Amino acid sequence: MNKTLSVLFALLVFGGVVSPNAFAQKPAGKNSKQEALLNTDIEFAKASVGTSAAEAFAMYLADDSMQLPAGGNPIVGKQAILAGMRSGDVLSWEPKKAEVAKSGELGWTWGTFELHTKDAEGKPVVRYGKYVNIWRKQKDGAWKVILDMGNASPAPAAP
Amino acid sequence: MNKTLSVLFALLVFGGVVSPNAFAQKPAGKNSKQEALLNTDIEFAKASVGTSAAEAFAMYLADDSMQLPAGGNPIVGKQAILAGMRSGDVLSWEPKKAEVAKSGELGWTWGTFELHTKDAEGKPVVRYGKYVNIWRKQKDGAWKVILDMGNASPAPAAP
Repeated sequence: MNKTLSVLFALLVFGGVVSPNAFAQKPAGKNSKQEALLNTDIEFAKASVGTSAAEAFAMYLADDSMQLPAGGNPIVGKQAILAGMRSGDVLSWEPKKAEVAKSGELGWTWGTFELHTKDAEGKPVVRYGKYVNIWRKQKDGAWKVILDMGNASPAPAAP
Repeated sequence: MNKTLSVLFALLVFGGVVSPNAFAQKPAGKNSKQEALLNTDIEFAKASVGTSAAEAFAMYLADDSMQLPAGGNPIVGKQAILAGMRSGDVLSWEPKKAEVAKSGELGWTWGTFELHTKDAEGKPVVRYGKYVNIWRKQKDGAWKVILDMGNASPAPAAP
């Protein structure tokens, strides 16, 4: 890279015109299954914020899914999981990583979440945590969550 | 089966000489991968009680494993996970189910655990919970844990 190009590159990248990631695109292929599952979890998260957690879970849980809730006993089956969700809570999450088996039908994601809810006195509180979802590709090709587990994390340090 | 054989069968089975399960072996094949992974988690649990949780984790964690501890931030890498384990605690668990991808290199187990530890005053306490382990088969064919996550459960009802 000659000097002019270097300066141009620096301007584009560090001037914020182009993200450095734009120069580090992974080729499609080996990791495309991973990316597809990660994108599914991202869409799931968008649906939770855009509609409600219960509506998003209704879309993305497999019928035979299981939830392992923090502080509670295992909840078996999509309908039982949905019945246990509180309306009014806002659940948002950020998927961090996805992995898919070579055979393509089983995978998992993990990430961090924020639950905007109310405490026992009705005062708004934010709870922070992390989750693991295990996913199974359905016969129609759609990824659905077969296991959902979360636990608490410390609140992030103030910026 | 004629009458003599029937009586012999009944004697063997109900006399306790032969377990009824001996006649109900699942054929190796479809579920043998699941059983092998479940057995690996059972051996992992036995090692934890027989030696110590830290020694068992040292044997069964992949070098690049991650732990998502309840109440804490993610811990990345086997050495960091081992460094965070308290000596003296007794961690026992009961694997409930294993699933393995068709390709055979990725799987998961879940189960319930008991942690026999001490509270802030040094008094012995038992904490109950459940866990998910995600496993990856290594190049040498051994299953190792790549992700370990747990959270609390209510204490079981008194018998």
